[in-house]
Amino acid sequence: MNMKVLAIGAHPDDIEYGCGGTLTKYAQKGHDVFLFVASDGALGGDPDVRRQEQKEAAALLGAREIFWGGYNDTEIPLSRELIVRLEQVIGEVRPSMIFVNYPDDTHQDHRNLAQSATSATRSVANFLFYEVPSTQNFAPTCYSDIAGVLHRKLAVLEAHRSQVSKTNIEDLSILEVAVSCANFRGIQARVKYAEAFHSVRLLLES
Amino acid sequence: MNMKVLAIGAHPDDIEYGCGGTLTKYAQKGHDVFLFVASDGALGGDPDVRRQEQKEAAALLGAREIFWGGYNDTEIPLSRELIVRLEQVIGEVRPSMIFVNYPDDTHQDHRNLAQSATSATRSVANFLFYEVPSTQNFAPTCYSDIAGVLHRKLAVLEAHRSQVSKTNIEDLSILEVAVSCANFRGIQARVKYAEAFHSVRLLLES
Amino acid sequence: MNMKVLAIGAHPDDIEYGCGGTLTKYAQKGHDVFLFVASDGALGGDPDVRRQEQKEAAALLGAREIFWGGYNDTEIPLSRELIVRLEQVIGEVRPSMIFVNYPDDTHQDHRNLAQSATSATRSVANFLFYEVPSTQNFAPTCYSDIAGVLHRKLAVLEAHRSQVSKTNIEDLSILEVAVSCANFRGIQARVKYAEAFHSVRLLLES
Amino acid sequence: MNMKVLAIGAHPDDIEYGCGGTLTKYAQKGHDVFLFVASDGALGGDPDVRRQEQKEAAALLGAREIFWGGYNDTEIPLSRELIVRLEQVIGEVRPSMIFVNYPDDTHQDHRNLAQSATSATRSVANFLFYEVPSTQNFAPTCYSDIAGVLHRKLAVLEAHRSQVSKTNIEDLSILEVAVSCANFRGIQARVKYAEAFHSVRLLLES
Amino acid sequence: MNMKVLAIGAHPDDIEYGCGGTLTKYAQKGHDVFLFVASDGALGGDPDVRRQEQKEAAALLGAREIFWGGYNDTEIPLSRELIVRLEQVIGEVRPSMIFVNYPDDTHQDHRNLAQSATSATRSVANFLFYEVPSTQNFAPTCYSDIAGVLHRKLAVLEAHRSQVSKTNIEDLSILEVAVSCANFRGIQARVKYAEAFHSVRLLLES
Amino acid sequence: MNMKVLAIGAHPDDIEYGCGGTLTKYAQKGHDVFLFVASDGALGGDPDVRRQEQKEAAALLGAREIFWGGYNDTEIPLSRELIVRLEQVIGEVRPSMIFVNYPDDTHQDHRNLAQSATSATRSVANFLFYEVPSTQNFAPTCYSDIAGVLHRKLAVLEAHRSQVSKTNIEDLSILEVAVSCANFRGIQARVKYAEAFHSVRLLLES
Repeated sequence: MNMKVLAIGAHPDDIEYGCGGTLTKYAQKGHDVFLFVASDGALGGDPDVRRQEQKEAAALLGAREIFWGGYNDTEIPLSRELIVRLEQVIGEVRPSMIFVNYPDDTHQDHRNLAQSATSATRSVANFLFYEVPSTQNFAPTCYSDIAGVLHRKLAVLEAHRSQVSKTNIEDLSILEVAVSCANFRGIQARVKYAEAFHSVRLLLES
Repeated sequence: MNMKVLAIGAHPDDIEYGCGGTLTKYAQKGHDVFLFVASDGALGGDPDVRRQEQKEAAALLGAREIFWGGYNDTEIPLSRELIVRLEQVIGEVRPSMIFVNYPDDTHQDHRNLAQSATSATRSVANFLFYEVPSTQNFAPTCYSDIAGVLHRKLAVLEAHRSQVSKTNIEDLSILEVAVSCANFRGIQARVKYAEAFHSVRLLLES
Repeated sequence: MNMKVLAIGAHPDDIEYGCGGTLTKYAQKGHDVFLFVASDGALGGDPDVRRQEQKEAAALLGAREIFWGGYNDTEIPLSRELIVRLEQVIGEVRPSMIFVNYPDDTHQDHRNLAQSATSATRSVANFLFYEVPSTQNFAPTCYSDIAGVLHRKLAVLEAHRSQVSKTNIEDLSILEVAVSCANFRGIQARVKYAEAFHSVRLLLES
Repeated sequence: MNMKVLAIGAHPDDIEYGCGGTLTKYAQKGHDVFLFVASDGALGGDPDVRRQEQKEAAALLGAREIFWGGYNDTEIPLSRELIVRLEQVIGEVRPSMIFVNYPDDTHQDHRNLAQSATSATRSVANFLFYEVPSTQNFAPTCYSDIAGVLHRKLAVLEAHRSQVSKTNIEDLSILEVAVSCANFRGIQARVKYAEAFHSVRLLLES
Repeated sequence: MNMKVLAIGAHPDDIEYGCGGTLTKYAQKGHDVFLFVASDGALGGDPDVRRQEQKEAAALLGAREIFWGGYNDTEIPLSRELIVRLEQVIGEVRPSMIFVNYPDDTHQDHRNLAQSATSATRSVANFLFYEVPSTQNFAPTCYSDIAGVLHRKLAVLEAHRSQVSKTNIEDLSILEVAVSCANFRGIQARVKYAEAFHSVRLLLES
Repeated sequence: MNMKVLAIGAHPDDIEYGCGGTLTKYAQKGHDVFLFVASDGALGGDPDVRRQEQKEAAALLGAREIFWGGYNDTEIPLSRELIVRLEQVIGEVRPSMIFVNYPDDTHQDHRNLAQSATSATRSVANFLFYEVPSTQNFAPTCYSDIAGVLHRKLAVLEAHRSQVSKTNIEDLSILEVAVSCANFRGIQARVKYAEAFHSVRLLLES
């Protein structure tokens, strides 16, 4: 049965890093994937470039539509206004499954977005947290086997060309980090490559 | 695709209380459900009576087979021997999904069985904990909507006639407790009645 | 010895759901019960109606006085201003025991109020969190046996007539949820019906 | 109303360190205090001397009776046999409140005793963990103000003369550690000296 | 190798209570110690007096420089502005090790400062939380033996003369609390006196 | 100052996976590294072969000596006997730093060994847990930068030739898993490759 999936991220490439493989699989199976990107990540590169990169990435992912939050990079607020904004998107898309980054994170944008999403998604049956490199204290409760779509995930991350080498660590690209993470989580999931999630609510289909 | 599901319990009626509704749904969908009951619960009633009740309950559940552990009630060991026993059953059934009670519990049988199962199930893709009345500190990560099968779950619990009134609290039957629990967890899952689980490993199908 | 008890809630009927039975018992024993209701819950019904319902509920509870925070529903702030407001009420009432909802919750009003209360109540000997339907990850550390006052608790909840059927789940009233919760927590407390609390500070009287 | 309180400890002086002040207050108020000491602590001193010291300490505490477990120091088992032993004592004393050391501890005796007690005390309304110097990761949920009985607690600890200087740290007696702990926990309880507990189950009297 | 250490505190004397001994040792070993004090603690005394006391304390500690945040006492914000402010100080000092109070705390200033510091310090190799009297749920992961500098720590705390008796508990000075805490944590560290920390990131030198 | 470091593992290659890089660095700096391998991993290969592989690995690591526990693979006990055995080795080596695998693990050998080590190491100043592929719920608190010794770590793991491809996942060698893990933890430590640890006790040198 066709499902609508909404993935929420603070900056272009957060969603792709955290659940790009899983979203690709959903799109391939005919489900409708939507993205909400809260800021255009302007502090990490030219905003027009980042928006264009996001569009290409979304296309590679197979997403139907991108909703832009329009907040400034590093300034995503902890406010009722953001909750209402998210509720509007949820009301329009009517997803049965929503992903957002885990709340425990060194970046204030990630913390504020996750908290706001916790409120906005309160009535949705399936609500899960994904991880990004700045995530802290993440204990997964479920996984998606992405071995079959890893190549696609990397292509999607590469579409964010301006971000590929920006890991803040010398000689380390986001692609390498993504593969290491997928392999590390794969071991935990008993597969070769996986994306890991912490589910707040998840309905077993049976 | 047909799935094999194995539910592990310490005493007759633990499985039914913790995931009877979910197992019923799996059986109704054509999946193969198997039960492993570690002890015959003799301290809570005549062992022959309890075994017979378990058979009836299993039939109502739609289970294919019951494996009896043969351990004495209150004496389920924390030992390699039990791990090997469980591995044998898993090797025979080859389930892709396994349920057992949550480890944090006032009853030593539940603690020992859950720990042993954690070892025996290490290679299985889907491994989840269910709750029983003596469970402590249970934080669910996924749910199953059992509104459509609640009546069946109660019938299955009632098949354990010798246990129905044994909640250790005056004027409270296990049926009433089960309905309250299903409703309490239902609220958390955004449905009317639910069974709640804490997933150690769970693969999202996508 | 006469005690002053202050219960803090975000919306009319939060307090009654979380600790209405316990407060009723305190009032019946001659202790002085006070309520602080941060918002009038206007988004869940006509504000005048909700205020009137709260007054009736408070009377049934046996509360001496209601303090209204005057904040807008869904807009309870995370601010110093709210902390100061609570400190004023605490300074006036001089309670030795304070209840507020648990901080981990899908509703931003509950999160903000609980955090602010954590600051305002810092000098009070007994400070406990109660649960409401939107509470997450609640691990109780103490209980109150409310079997003898359950009927009163339900009457108090029914006084909030405009809220009784608003659980967001079809065919489920807040009364049914409250009874299920009381029974579920009762099992954990070894009684038939209980309210559960997570105590931050609690002095054993001995 | 007269209460029966049972305190369970692994070695002589564990109980006194963890809840000696609280037990003294209960005895002073006319409640009946009982002790169960699992081993005679022979590895920490002559067993006859330790037994005699325990008797003197118990008398100073105001305890009615000491039950000796008879297990060997460092060999308290994780077994059903110990659970049954504790159940016998509980059946004889019929306490409504039970204390035992917290399970997370570097000493295997403490871990095994706490786990066994978790099973044996399953039907008792009030069950709390106290801390000892080797306790790890202890997060208190309730306290007892022991400023008025600190002198008595120290006298009780001093009755265990053979243990007073055995803290494994040069120039540090158990008395000094006990006072520091009482002051550290006092700050958390908003009093000068306190004993801290983690309550598994506790009934609010109201 | 010379290290630059930055300690961040909300009010004068927070740093000294939480890590004054450790900072003294670092200074004695030739490392460069810097302090960032977010507010002047005006609500706890005359601001000019508190600033002067902080200077004397810093001198006793051996700190090179104090950076003043200039925020008002009880009004330290949860805002991007504070994160940027901290980033500026970090950019100027270039520390390899940073200390700040633990986030779980009854005081909103402590919570807000710790959260903001979590963001600002994201690229620094060593980032640790210290405790203050209002800290809650603190589980240490590392320690510093301060037996050799305890006298200095107390002198540093005494330099905050206006705060010494302000523990909110009768007959209890901050000096006594500090010694009790050092002794309590000492036991956990297997020394006589210690400061305890919860490390978010710490690099083992080997 | 020369340090003695003891690393404890359940099976040959556990230590190398969890802290092989860190131990290599300690040995290179002139510290004395010792290994205690509880079982010979016979269920994962010929015991003589595994012992020989362990010797070669230890030599590559720069370890001074290997202590063999002599327990059977999958049968490492949860017993006082093992605690005493570990205490003997600790008494002989007199280490100031000890590593063992994290207790939360699907393998009973890892759980039992970690618990026993928690008791045996109670007086040692520095006690840390490392992770292995079967570790669960691991939240690191400190790291070691192993970029400079990664090649050595892989050589050491390869010395366990009989284990290299035994990850239970098709097309995945332990070397690949080790690199992914080192990169994943590197990101958390802000370096390219790291080993992560959860410290129970760790003394800051200052």
